Amino acid sequence: MTVLEHYKNTRAYTNQICKPLEIEDYTPQSAEFASPPKWHLAHTSWFFEEIILKKYIKNYQVFNSDFSFLFNSYYNSLGERLDRSKRGLITRPSITTIFKYRDHVDHFMIALLEQENLKADIVELAILGLNHEQQHQELLITDIKYTLSCNPTYPKLYDINYVNEVESVNKPAYISIQEGIYNIGHNKKTFSYDNESGYHRVFLEPFQIAQNLVTNEEYMRFINAGGYKNPNYWLDDGWQFIKENAITAPLYWKQKESSWMSYTLSGLEPINLAAPVCHVSYYEAQAFAAWSKKRLPTEFEWEVANSKFKWNQRWEWTNSAYLPYPNYKKPDGAVGEYNGKFMINLMVLRGKSLATSPNHSRATYRNFFSPETRWQFSGIRLAE
Amino acid sequence: MTVLEHYKNTRAYTNQICKPLEIEDYTPQSAEFASPPKWHLAHTSWFFEEIILKKYIKNYQVFNSDFSFLFNSYYNSLGERLDRSKRGLITRPSITTIFKYRDHVDHFMIALLEQENLKADIVELAILGLNHEQQHQELLITDIKYTLSCNPTYPKLYDINYVNEVESVNKPAYISIQEGIYNIGHNKKTFSYDNESGYHRVFLEPFQIAQNLVTNEEYMRFINAGGYKNPNYWLDDGWQFIKENAITAPLYWKQKESSWMSYTLSGLEPINLAAPVCHVSYYEAQAFAAWSKKRLPTEFEWEVANSKFKWNQRWEWTNSAYLPYPNYKKPDGAVGEYNGKFMINLMVLRGKSLATSPNHSRATYRNFFSPETRWQFSGIRLAE
Amino acid sequence: MTVLEHYKNTRAYTNQICKPLEIEDYTPQSAEFASPPKWHLAHTSWFFEEIILKKYIKNYQVFNSDFSFLFNSYYNSLGERLDRSKRGLITRPSITTIFKYRDHVDHFMIALLEQENLKADIVELAILGLNHEQQHQELLITDIKYTLSCNPTYPKLYDINYVNEVESVNKPAYISIQEGIYNIGHNKKTFSYDNESGYHRVFLEPFQIAQNLVTNEEYMRFINAGGYKNPNYWLDDGWQFIKENAITAPLYWKQKESSWMSYTLSGLEPINLAAPVCHVSYYEAQAFAAWSKKRLPTEFEWEVANSKFKWNQRWEWTNSAYLPYPNYKKPDGAVGEYNGKFMINLMVLRGKSLATSPNHSRATYRNFFSPETRWQFSGIRLAE
Amino acid sequence: MTVLEHYKNTRAYTNQICKPLEIEDYTPQSAEFASPPKWHLAHTSWFFEEIILKKYIKNYQVFNSDFSFLFNSYYNSLGERLDRSKRGLITRPSITTIFKYRDHVDHFMIALLEQENLKADIVELAILGLNHEQQHQELLITDIKYTLSCNPTYPKLYDINYVNEVESVNKPAYISIQEGIYNIGHNKKTFSYDNESGYHRVFLEPFQIAQNLVTNEEYMRFINAGGYKNPNYWLDDGWQFIKENAITAPLYWKQKESSWMSYTLSGLEPINLAAPVCHVSYYEAQAFAAWSKKRLPTEFEWEVANSKFKWNQRWEWTNSAYLPYPNYKKPDGAVGEYNGKFMINLMVLRGKSLATSPNHSRATYRNFFSPETRWQFSGIRLAE
Repeated sequence: MTVLEHYKNTRAYTNQICKPLEIEDYTPQSAEFASPPKWHLAHTSWFFEEIILKKYIKNYQVFNSDFSFLFNSYYNSLGERLDRSKRGLITRPSITTIFKYRDHVDHFMIALLEQENLKADIVELAILGLNHEQQHQELLITDIKYTLSCNPTYPKLYDINYVNEVESVNKPAYISIQEGIYNIGHNKKTFSYDNESGYHRVFLEPFQIAQNLVTNEEYMRFINAGGYKNPNYWLDDGWQFIKENAITAPLYWKQKESSWMSYTLSGLEPINLAAPVCHVSYYEAQAFAAWSKKRLPTEFEWEVANSKFKWNQRWEWTNSAYLPYPNYKKPDGAVGEYNGKFMINLMVLRGKSLATSPNHSRATYRNFFSPETRWQFSGIRLAE
Repeated sequence: MTVLEHYKNTRAYTNQICKPLEIEDYTPQSAEFASPPKWHLAHTSWFFEEIILKKYIKNYQVFNSDFSFLFNSYYNSLGERLDRSKRGLITRPSITTIFKYRDHVDHFMIALLEQENLKADIVELAILGLNHEQQHQELLITDIKYTLSCNPTYPKLYDINYVNEVESVNKPAYISIQEGIYNIGHNKKTFSYDNESGYHRVFLEPFQIAQNLVTNEEYMRFINAGGYKNPNYWLDDGWQFIKENAITAPLYWKQKESSWMSYTLSGLEPINLAAPVCHVSYYEAQAFAAWSKKRLPTEFEWEVANSKFKWNQRWEWTNSAYLPYPNYKKPDGAVGEYNGKFMINLMVLRGKSLATSPNHSRATYRNFFSPETRWQFSGIRLAE
Repeated sequence: MTVLEHYKNTRAYTNQICKPLEIEDYTPQSAEFASPPKWHLAHTSWFFEEIILKKYIKNYQVFNSDFSFLFNSYYNSLGERLDRSKRGLITRPSITTIFKYRDHVDHFMIALLEQENLKADIVELAILGLNHEQQHQELLITDIKYTLSCNPTYPKLYDINYVNEVESVNKPAYISIQEGIYNIGHNKKTFSYDNESGYHRVFLEPFQIAQNLVTNEEYMRFINAGGYKNPNYWLDDGWQFIKENAITAPLYWKQKESSWMSYTLSGLEPINLAAPVCHVSYYEAQAFAAWSKKRLPTEFEWEVANSKFKWNQRWEWTNSAYLPYPNYKKPDGAVGEYNGKFMINLMVLRGKSLATSPNHSRATYRNFFSPETRWQFSGIRLAE
Repeated sequence: MTVLEHYKNTRAYTNQICKPLEIEDYTPQSAEFASPPKWHLAHTSWFFEEIILKKYIKNYQVFNSDFSFLFNSYYNSLGERLDRSKRGLITRPSITTIFKYRDHVDHFMIALLEQENLKADIVELAILGLNHEQQHQELLITDIKYTLSCNPTYPKLYDINYVNEVESVNKPAYISIQEGIYNIGHNKKTFSYDNESGYHRVFLEPFQIAQNLVTNEEYMRFINAGGYKNPNYWLDDGWQFIKENAITAPLYWKQKESSWMSYTLSGLEPINLAAPVCHVSYYEAQAFAAWSKKRLPTEFEWEVANSKFKWNQRWEWTNSAYLPYPNYKKPDGAVGEYNGKFMINLMVLRGKSLATSPNHSRATYRNFFSPETRWQFSGIRLAE
């Protein structure tokens, strides 16, 4: 696939995600951690404008000079920006204008990418922009889900919902990995983020890792065994987190009389016992592991073992903090703000979820969220 | 004007207020004290449905049974309701559906009001519902203004803006009122709210009250004299309020280099020095009065003197707490929750603003807000 | 009694209140609204130093120049001061030093007051200082009680506790007062605060007021009738207040199996059913009145009727907001900060409690606290 | 040294730390993260009572049955406990009683430890209790310092202050360490905590580590170069942390006209330029390293290299999150709550400070605090 095709496909997929939205759905920000769909649509376009169009197109006219303030996410090097918590208050520009903005950016980007002998650094930045947009595609899905879940009428958006579907299942077994020195990180010619790039060596003690993700059925056993009521299974912060927020089940689960339902993008549905548990925090993953007398794998164990199991259903919490690899160099400028400055207080997730954009993740991919995060499509794989 | 005409006019005026809105403007709640336009449109319809249609129309089918939960404001006697702070998250029903809901309610209300020999209690409740909707019309305007003001692009909505227009001005003088026993309250056959109804007697010491409202020019003199920097003029709570919120001018004022502008519904405009100051809190009104070596009038003084000055430009802060009149009886049921339960920690405003709906206010009308309120069209009249 | 005797008695009574304290009890600030005993002891001395000694004694040497910063309560005109919430962190100076400070101030004050032909303004300020200290005496008692109540061991401090003692009771009846114009305020030669001074006239509609305060037995009936569970009796703010704080009974009440106990200054005791209810907020007083189909008296009704009933057991919540009288003039300088700047968001209490210092209150005395206040010795008298 | 001698010395050292305290200093809790000295004195005694005396002494009578509630820190398995934030409100028992409590515990502990043929598990628990008390000794010092620093009079407590003293300095150079597999962890017969026990292997890429800690002089260069004003050096969370808390220098630094002073346990002192910087958060350590174009070492690099440099002045922030070693097993019961449940959102510090108790730390010791922690005696060693 050429970069041009990649560009067109990716931009089109973003629009497709938004197709079933009402105009009213585009605006609200339902939580500090989520962003309005309108914002995602504009921000991903702004990113191309900022890192490519402004630099590589002579006399480029920005679509609207206010947008840099409105749709910068967190790049200090790219000027002042709107306070993150206020994204939901920006009713103007309307979504119609935002789609015009996307067209404007597409027009120039496509013209640029159609050129022959494209400079390598433009290609590189374009691919970064597309990976960036793919990340926001999954965030669009998770943020829309969160907003609609606040509505007591439980709207249905899609036919698929990414949580109750069951992929063919591996044999229920643990895979053994030998001790040894392993190369960790991405060392190929293809695209990777700065936080995963370049080999470094890690010594692993021998370990075992589960073929399958933990299922809703297994997780329900944990709930029924009083898992949310016994502090012994929990980290101290995790225990406080579930007590303060009165958490007794994964996000979106609702107890209706004697049975559990969950809000999904296709509406309120009975929990599929055979599907992998979803929308659990690191704290819940860790407590489940403690109750199971197992543990979570480190991200290194996961990376070394990944070819021996399937991983395409849930982002998988690891027991690794998100920290720089030994050979990590923060790039200069705005790109350097992409990953490096978040390397504290977050845990690494590996794999991908059913809602992850096609061709986006890879075995060395490091996703990262704070341990209380539940609105992502996150699940649990055990190790020991 | 018949109740039927009153109904049609009032409902039409609500729609007219919303005409220049983009669909995106209908959803957000920009502050705990404000509500989304969509919510106002639905809530005022729900009010008619709840207090009239459900009771007086046989086999009335509610438009949507979820709406009672979604659009109840604060009536404990009318069931569970959505948490006030979450009104901005309700993207569904869409605004199209809400306008259908209004049509549905209009259809039944008009059919009802077209009947001959309408029962007196239906007429009475209909008039209550229309006054209720008129109150929300002004709130629609103030809430829309607040939301748009959060947008750094300062959108223009209307040609008039309710703050920079100047009405013909009274002679700058103080009116003297003699001591004596005065009747306070509303004792006519026409509509009034429960909180103002029925005479009671009040003894007033002699006092003087200003012909004119305080102008922007006079207020600017207070600012330039360091009014916001000297605690002596301020109530202790007021001083804390302006320090914690870094308040140095009325709401919506922005200092651009050496001159003051203000955000208005017709965009960012220079302050009109001749217009009455607007969007000040009780604390600012009180501090201005202290700096002027005057005081604010009580609501009784205002009511007794009101026929001697014009009052149609600003809601006027009084030095009276919002408390029940001696003969106040809280009505039974939902209507009893309209006014009575708010009689604490609020101050009375008298008069009306340029944004108040036609034929809504009167000389005995008691408006009430907390002393830090600034987003209403509030101004200052002095007394001594 | 001469001012000198008054001075000696008052200062000695402060010490007597503190007698049963452990040194450790002097330091903590158990709530934002309370102050450490050490702070009260120093602040009341600082007050004399600041308003009298510094001005009227030539070359007066302050005891310690840091104390002005440490022990100023809220006087902006007397310089910078310690943030109120940090009073509990000031371990040094030790209580030994504070008592030396009191001796130092006493030494100079007594020398001054022993002079013949004392200037009238010194006498006036001395009396203000003594009344100030008396106010702090009751606060000492209420604050100590609050701090000790945080201790799960429920320490006993005194033999009397000010809440379970029962005074001889009036006949259970309502007193009728005729309509008319009444003089309100203090107009005698003796001491009064600025907020109560000078007559003004008030017209009162006819009303009835209860001979007796509401007893614990009556209040318990309200609790048992579900008074804390029915929003209809409550102001909206009051309902939120009791829900957010999970309040189901007066402060210090503890349910032990089937019976109610309360923490008192003489330890945990059974509730005395015959004693007047104590430690209720304005919200609870108002809700009790609504449940009783009565109301609270206004402060004017209370003042007019007071000679017809006994009032010496509880501070009595009135239905009057704390606002300036028509003829109120805020004094210049620090004394002007004593009362005037608090005239917002507070309700007036009249009367006195068993813990009020001897000869401190009077029929025109206006005490004032926010409507959620419960740690004062506050009770309920009904009117209708 | 026998366990008995170890016991006597350790307990005596705790008392020695408290010697210069006023009684008033024992009670306040000046921050959520700090505890009152009285609490430390009681809690360390409670620990011996709970894990040894209650179990191994027949018919042991607890000193006071309330103490288990009052002085349990965070052990869910040992019953209910006082809310951490309320430790400063417990004025009773008085410090006199707490010292009697210590004597009571000492009496039984010494009698026990004087026995011949002491069981191994008692010895082991006694040593755990003594290490526990040593940790609290340093916390006593840091907490007392924090409380006294809140006092605008800057009291002096000791002659030494642990921050301005300068030890003999290493040559300013970097030590090179070869790549290889290294054993990490404590594998000797002597005492270690569960979180450091047992070898595991780690592969390290080649690295260099500084001989010396960063000095105040070097850190001041960072400040003067605008280090606290440039977001590029900072983690995103760190940048927010310093902005929200208006941090522009290490904790306890005060700018007096043109020069920097710092509050120390011997009073307000000029900063000693030659001394290692102290009281910096992880965020500041990381930003300083970024500005220096270096990085912090991982805890593994530190442990491997530690024999080649001196470490006795500051707790040294590492770039390692506090997570379990591969072979970590959480012990059963209360001891299992000692370390394991805190393994999230914290960073590891290695080494020891001048305030660390004698013979307490070791090369494998893992200290851990949240990245914003500043009140510990923490410093910076660079790596690359």
